[in-house]
Amino acid sequence: MDKAEKIINELETGSIDVITAIAELVDGKSVDNLGFACIDHDRNSRCGFPEFIYGAGKNEDQMLKIIPSLLDKGSPVLITRIEEKTGTILKADYPEGEYDELAGTFMMNAPAPEQRKHKVLILTAGTSDLGVGREALHTLNVCGINAEIISDVGVAGLQRLLMQVKKLRLADVVIVAAGMEGALPSVVGGLVSCPVIAVPTSVGYGAAMHGFAALAGMLNSCASGITVVNIDNGFGAACAAVRIINGLKAGK
Amino acid sequence: MDKAEKIINELETGSIDVITAIAELVDGKSVDNLGFACIDHDRNSRCGFPEFIYGAGKNEDQMLKIIPSLLDKGSPVLITRIEEKTGTILKADYPEGEYDELAGTFMMNAPAPEQRKHKVLILTAGTSDLGVGREALHTLNVCGINAEIISDVGVAGLQRLLMQVKKLRLADVVIVAAGMEGALPSVVGGLVSCPVIAVPTSVGYGAAMHGFAALAGMLNSCASGITVVNIDNGFGAACAAVRIINGLKAGK
Amino acid sequence: MDKAEKIINELETGSIDVITAIAELVDGKSVDNLGFACIDHDRNSRCGFPEFIYGAGKNEDQMLKIIPSLLDKGSPVLITRIEEKTGTILKADYPEGEYDELAGTFMMNAPAPEQRKHKVLILTAGTSDLGVGREALHTLNVCGINAEIISDVGVAGLQRLLMQVKKLRLADVVIVAAGMEGALPSVVGGLVSCPVIAVPTSVGYGAAMHGFAALAGMLNSCASGITVVNIDNGFGAACAAVRIINGLKAGK
Amino acid sequence: MDKAEKIINELETGSIDVITAIAELVDGKSVDNLGFACIDHDRNSRCGFPEFIYGAGKNEDQMLKIIPSLLDKGSPVLITRIEEKTGTILKADYPEGEYDELAGTFMMNAPAPEQRKHKVLILTAGTSDLGVGREALHTLNVCGINAEIISDVGVAGLQRLLMQVKKLRLADVVIVAAGMEGALPSVVGGLVSCPVIAVPTSVGYGAAMHGFAALAGMLNSCASGITVVNIDNGFGAACAAVRIINGLKAGK
Amino acid sequence: MDKAEKIINELETGSIDVITAIAELVDGKSVDNLGFACIDHDRNSRCGFPEFIYGAGKNEDQMLKIIPSLLDKGSPVLITRIEEKTGTILKADYPEGEYDELAGTFMMNAPAPEQRKHKVLILTAGTSDLGVGREALHTLNVCGINAEIISDVGVAGLQRLLMQVKKLRLADVVIVAAGMEGALPSVVGGLVSCPVIAVPTSVGYGAAMHGFAALAGMLNSCASGITVVNIDNGFGAACAAVRIINGLKAGK
Amino acid sequence: MDKAEKIINELETGSIDVITAIAELVDGKSVDNLGFACIDHDRNSRCGFPEFIYGAGKNEDQMLKIIPSLLDKGSPVLITRIEEKTGTILKADYPEGEYDELAGTFMMNAPAPEQRKHKVLILTAGTSDLGVGREALHTLNVCGINAEIISDVGVAGLQRLLMQVKKLRLADVVIVAAGMEGALPSVVGGLVSCPVIAVPTSVGYGAAMHGFAALAGMLNSCASGITVVNIDNGFGAACAAVRIINGLKAGK
Amino acid sequence: MDKAEKIINELETGSIDVITAIAELVDGKSVDNLGFACIDHDRNSRCGFPEFIYGAGKNEDQMLKIIPSLLDKGSPVLITRIEEKTGTILKADYPEGEYDELAGTFMMNAPAPEQRKHKVLILTAGTSDLGVGREALHTLNVCGINAEIISDVGVAGLQRLLMQVKKLRLADVVIVAAGMEGALPSVVGGLVSCPVIAVPTSVGYGAAMHGFAALAGMLNSCASGITVVNIDNGFGAACAAVRIINGLKAGK
Amino acid sequence: MDKAEKIINELETGSIDVITAIAELVDGKSVDNLGFACIDHDRNSRCGFPEFIYGAGKNEDQMLKIIPSLLDKGSPVLITRIEEKTGTILKADYPEGEYDELAGTFMMNAPAPEQRKHKVLILTAGTSDLGVGREALHTLNVCGINAEIISDVGVAGLQRLLMQVKKLRLADVVIVAAGMEGALPSVVGGLVSCPVIAVPTSVGYGAAMHGFAALAGMLNSCASGITVVNIDNGFGAACAAVRIINGLKAGK
Repeated sequence: MDKAEKIINELETGSIDVITAIAELVDGKSVDNLGFACIDHDRNSRCGFPEFIYGAGKNEDQMLKIIPSLLDKGSPVLITRIEEKTGTILKADYPEGEYDELAGTFMMNAPAPEQRKHKVLILTAGTSDLGVGREALHTLNVCGINAEIISDVGVAGLQRLLMQVKKLRLADVVIVAAGMEGALPSVVGGLVSCPVIAVPTSVGYGAAMHGFAALAGMLNSCASGITVVNIDNGFGAACAAVRIINGLKAGK
Repeated sequence: MDKAEKIINELETGSIDVITAIAELVDGKSVDNLGFACIDHDRNSRCGFPEFIYGAGKNEDQMLKIIPSLLDKGSPVLITRIEEKTGTILKADYPEGEYDELAGTFMMNAPAPEQRKHKVLILTAGTSDLGVGREALHTLNVCGINAEIISDVGVAGLQRLLMQVKKLRLADVVIVAAGMEGALPSVVGGLVSCPVIAVPTSVGYGAAMHGFAALAGMLNSCASGITVVNIDNGFGAACAAVRIINGLKAGK
Repeated sequence: MDKAEKIINELETGSIDVITAIAELVDGKSVDNLGFACIDHDRNSRCGFPEFIYGAGKNEDQMLKIIPSLLDKGSPVLITRIEEKTGTILKADYPEGEYDELAGTFMMNAPAPEQRKHKVLILTAGTSDLGVGREALHTLNVCGINAEIISDVGVAGLQRLLMQVKKLRLADVVIVAAGMEGALPSVVGGLVSCPVIAVPTSVGYGAAMHGFAALAGMLNSCASGITVVNIDNGFGAACAAVRIINGLKAGK
Repeated sequence: MDKAEKIINELETGSIDVITAIAELVDGKSVDNLGFACIDHDRNSRCGFPEFIYGAGKNEDQMLKIIPSLLDKGSPVLITRIEEKTGTILKADYPEGEYDELAGTFMMNAPAPEQRKHKVLILTAGTSDLGVGREALHTLNVCGINAEIISDVGVAGLQRLLMQVKKLRLADVVIVAAGMEGALPSVVGGLVSCPVIAVPTSVGYGAAMHGFAALAGMLNSCASGITVVNIDNGFGAACAAVRIINGLKAGK
Repeated sequence: MDKAEKIINELETGSIDVITAIAELVDGKSVDNLGFACIDHDRNSRCGFPEFIYGAGKNEDQMLKIIPSLLDKGSPVLITRIEEKTGTILKADYPEGEYDELAGTFMMNAPAPEQRKHKVLILTAGTSDLGVGREALHTLNVCGINAEIISDVGVAGLQRLLMQVKKLRLADVVIVAAGMEGALPSVVGGLVSCPVIAVPTSVGYGAAMHGFAALAGMLNSCASGITVVNIDNGFGAACAAVRIINGLKAGK
Repeated sequence: MDKAEKIINELETGSIDVITAIAELVDGKSVDNLGFACIDHDRNSRCGFPEFIYGAGKNEDQMLKIIPSLLDKGSPVLITRIEEKTGTILKADYPEGEYDELAGTFMMNAPAPEQRKHKVLILTAGTSDLGVGREALHTLNVCGINAEIISDVGVAGLQRLLMQVKKLRLADVVIVAAGMEGALPSVVGGLVSCPVIAVPTSVGYGAAMHGFAALAGMLNSCASGITVVNIDNGFGAACAAVRIINGLKAGK
Repeated sequence: MDKAEKIINELETGSIDVITAIAELVDGKSVDNLGFACIDHDRNSRCGFPEFIYGAGKNEDQMLKIIPSLLDKGSPVLITRIEEKTGTILKADYPEGEYDELAGTFMMNAPAPEQRKHKVLILTAGTSDLGVGREALHTLNVCGINAEIISDVGVAGLQRLLMQVKKLRLADVVIVAAGMEGALPSVVGGLVSCPVIAVPTSVGYGAAMHGFAALAGMLNSCASGITVVNIDNGFGAACAAVRIINGLKAGK
Repeated sequence: MDKAEKIINELETGSIDVITAIAELVDGKSVDNLGFACIDHDRNSRCGFPEFIYGAGKNEDQMLKIIPSLLDKGSPVLITRIEEKTGTILKADYPEGEYDELAGTFMMNAPAPEQRKHKVLILTAGTSDLGVGREALHTLNVCGINAEIISDVGVAGLQRLLMQVKKLRLADVVIVAAGMEGALPSVVGGLVSCPVIAVPTSVGYGAAMHGFAALAGMLNSCASGITVVNIDNGFGAACAAVRIINGLKAGK
């Protein structure tokens, strides 16, 4: 308290500027500094979901140091973008964890299904988009939200999508993962009134440009109000859905 | 009824396929075909907002034929992407309409302010992003949603943003318009738990690449759960917000 | 005849190579050299449609010298990509010609409608794609082929397209012009068995990249067997349709 | 019948909208839902060729579940984009199938050669384009169409192409596969009147940009009426040829 | 003081988080909110140069409201990226201001030349790069730093550069503006030990890609330790020089 | 001489480094410094052609100061990339100069035709490429080299090119200007053994990408030994031809 | 002779067109059709260098069938772009052949050094560009031309290049290979009057874009008359030099 | 001395040009030509840091020949961009060397820590950017400069950065490495007055485009005076810092 008072005093008298005052105040608060990583334990209260771990470019040692820091706070654990070798190592230390090879994710301490609320529908245009879809599924589950995947309903065979319209209209949020030309979100966006989050995938070759064709298509959708996340970013689409469901939960 | 029965019969006996059956059934329903344009009067019931008019590439004659088709159904009218000359012509025919030069929009028959619900906050990183912000504002208003613009709170002077945190946390949705490096949504996304919709703008020069630098930045935001719309697409961001507020209104 | 014999002799004895022999033989045949342009009067017999004039980058003087060269052979005349000023000048000299401002074309000496055979359907996703559609229409007509435009049937309001399925299935070829995400050909390709030629248009802004988003989308269509032409190239799509109809006419 | 009648009634009285009616009607029709994939058995009647399997991103288990679903309906089977390991596994289960390593395809149940009609000529600019050419060949054969490959007739040695002109003029459709600068279709398009489908290949290095140089070249061909498919997409070019031959077969 | 104390209390007891505390503290401090713009009067103390005005996308009314806000604090005024019409209007209100058409800048209240310290040398590869060079010159001057431009010393005539080596070696910082292939910074970087800031310019055509060829070249310079700013960004290069000179002035 | 001796002494004794010595020696030699431009009068002896003036981004005052500097040395004058307004101003001061609107060049003091040696053939694929061809023509003439343009011999009508083979084989260098897919140099390169310099032009639209499609095509030519210059750079192609003819003249 | 006479007759009487006549005449001449490849034995007489083999995408069986076809005609053999495994296989069959791992080439039957004429200098900016330089070296040697490589003379240490000026000025052609920013050709082009052929290499990372930064730089060289070939295309640069030396040999 | 005098004489009398004179003078000076590489021993005196070795594309033999050339002159040794295999080989020959696997560097003969002056702060936005940060660290140390890395302070959790403000304000130079959207330098640039050098990293996927999103963001930073180096170029950022510290050391 003494220190804070001193800072406020200096700020009021103008001997320090506001940013310096902030820097002094914030020092060390709510951050778990592991040297190579700063765990942000305030994230859940600020953003509505806990700190997750982006696995790409981290080694298993680093992950095994971060996990306890999260578990200590009672947080669920989700590590994305890991390979099979890493999944096996994590599984050895934490047998209760769930490793999904297709999605490249490792998950622990998620809320039980019966505690999950609301419903997100995840559509994939083709079978090859399933990995991206499952990354979204696990992210939603770990945040306590129900989700279901409907696979292979691309626009070249419209009846496959049309037979799902009823289900689509019951969802709180629809996530649509599609590669190649990425046309599915445009058609879905014309069928439902709930939020539609489009995830371009890197499925395709040549002019698919590793997902940029689908990304460009989705950004230019003629169906108004479609939003887009990064290529193959099932995780990000799910986090965006969490932000939306946060509002519904709060009964805003 | 006779025709529909016949179609169903043919479908059941396999003499026509399901798409043919659909084509027969749908014929002429809920579409106002003006020759050069097909007005989709079902859109509001399907998508939660009425048919709006994309003004670019349409002449005033076409617009003046579409407007009555909308007014007849009691729809509000929003025309986007029009120039001053067009605004003046429309204003002459419909003096009660509101033309906003900065936003390039023409608006009529919007719900009164007191009928608008929920609250969307629109942030712009700089003064030059205001036109995009106002396109979003009008789209929200015409859909019966409150909105407020806070301008010039870019990240190079953090205190300008930090002093708005309280307001940010009261919003149902935040729309963030930014050009140049498009960093503002990442910082905002780390401060709030509600949905954040990022709109890259074409403000900047050289390596700003007419908004693609900001677009790329936003798609790669390190703040999870940010979604993105097309460059300068204030309209689309607002429609996405409408989809989210639709869910809140429904008390899902 | 003497010259040709001499060439053949030299070729047989090996004193000249085969390309030299060809060069000697071809000299001046079937080409009308105007200095600034070489009119290729064999094109119709080789390719199935006459030489057309690409107007961009040519001045009116040049056009007025090329037209008689075509009329002398009884060819129809089609000049594409011209502006209003040029259209007016040509109209002054050739009042019987037809100038279409929207399409940017000037047309003369086309076969009468009753002489036109087969049927090409031209779909446009939006009203703004009409100019491209009309360029295709005139090219087909000048080649003696029937064509009809159906406008504004984009995928965000599926019922607008579905009500056209019967007509679609009667066409010999379908040309689909679409900007923005260019999704319409994928949906059409899943509904019909005839050739589908996709024309990306430059309609849209930002990430539409002047038609490249639509182009990329169409090249990656999940509906098999869609072919694509250059952005805004209604002319080229029509020529491709002519090549297809050529085969039907020949009863191959 | 009762259900369909009820739907029609509701549609007529306006208690459901047209898309909802369609969704109810279409439910489960002509789709074989395997969970991870929805087999579209109507495709042949709608599009003129059966459902084929895009092998990339599918594992052998999935393929071995899809194959019987196709064979049960008497469909031919074509799996594209598979690697040698997959080819060997499929061959073990279906020894009557034909695996082509160069093309990366697996084929079964194709019509016998004597049942194949019409003729498609496949040109490749170089020897390295042969894999793409063979993917097209097998797709045509499986659809009951004759095809022949002529290899290594690039434009740097014109006499190689010129000696094939007679054969070229007898074809119903010409498919031209070329990498590097992709100039061959332009020259071919100036020599024949039938449809010319250009396939850019990823042959080349540096500024060939994995086929984008050839793709750009083909889209800008000065020979009118050339259409283009995705890079390395021999399959798609063949499907486009099937659509054209469909019309010839029908004697339209 | 009461308010600050309350905030600190709440932070200490955990009833608010650290960001909320900051938001409360920062409220309204050191920002001049003009509605359409937030003037950041702390910038000089934080960054070492005052708030400048990016003129593009601002109208004259807005500029005429911002200028007094700066003058009131005794700040110098620099407006960049303005056109002649704007320059004339500003000049009418502030005749003591200096408008430079070539650079597109308006400047007032700069320190007198004799008060300027240290020396920055600005090289331009060609005459066409002079506008960019002059934007840098004025920015430096307004910050109290001497600068000199040496023009047209591109690498195709090495002797033109070599005769300047003595001068180059006396500079504290060298700014090098070059378009086309942007090779000049690489050669300069091999001749001097002081900081070299490269500014790609949009001079050139075709594959110069509006400055991206020069930008790419400079980022890949084989001369180590060259840094780069945005295309045509003479202003930014000068600000970077100011940051460097700040350190020299401080005698660090 | 005293100064030079001193420099050499210092270099030998190591008190200055070699670059410093060079800088001292070169000071002011063979450069005409006009302040805004440094005229390089040694260029002809070093590179085999005089200093030419790149007109883009220079105003008429600057040009009118550079011209006398060149005439004083007896150099020919060539200014490229100028617009009609500039051409008229220059023509007023120098009536003996030749302004070519199509090429955008101004030329004076060129060698008389009878003094010109060797022969360069300039082919253009279409009529719209003529401006680029004429820029090359004037550059060659001003350097004392004969040149001839053959226009509109694109590959879609091979006979137009084949009838020129004899002429092609007599040329010392062939320059080929082509837009769209840029295929002409590949075919020409397969017909002749002399150097072939390809100039991509910005003729075309959409996927022609302002000349980048042609540029990419030419860089990937399957005809070996084609070299390429910048888009629309007729001047550069001609300078490359001058370098080649320099060798022939020298009878190397 | 009878066949040729018949063709000529038909051409004269108009019963066949000129291209058909050519096709008949050319049939089978000077082409060795191996099924998978058409060897063009006329290339040397037409282009001044023999048919070489692009190894990428060809297997060893194909190469071992092409080699005898070349040796039978007494041609030298050069295979480019092969890997070590292929080199070893070829070496086993043809021990007299020369495999260069760095260049990725296999060479046989080249003229003896004493039979080689004229001189090409190959500069590389860095050590990593040596492979590209050596591909050029072997191509020149196999065509009977002397060549020498000077390595690691990049522009960041100008004295390394300046000490080679005397040698540079004795060369008939200079080939300059450089990666990263590709600035070396611009400096060389300002020092010599002979042809300068620039080869961008893929050396570098990040914004070097696999050679595209160097390619763009070279196309925009401020040193006039530089020509450019594809990235890493040492072979093509050498062939261009052969075309130039062809003219010198002919004493044109 | 005789030779130099002769050169000067010839230059004075005009019998040689200035570049020839330079070439003669420079011959062999201060360059250690190893055949495959030219070691530039003057670099330290010219540029303020010694010649370093870019390891990519060099083999161990070459490195082991270059190292003694540097050690002989007493230079420190830094080899960048090497893989583990190379590191092990070098370590075997020079056990006193330091190989850092994460950074990919090998370092010898660096000044002792107590001899290092001034202070550079290296920030990384995430843990995955550490390799780039460490490359910068070693480069600075080898040049006798203190440096410290602060890791994982990205903008999505502002408090992590704000708690470092005090430290930031004590640094002489700040290097900021960030991937994904690259927003960190913009925020840092608004907090400090010293030079800020931004290093985009290739961390991220999809629209991160291997670092180009971060690069574009940094070039367009709204915080004035940020400079940028190539993607992943920690080495270059450090060299730029050395240039700045050079000035401070000199007490300019």
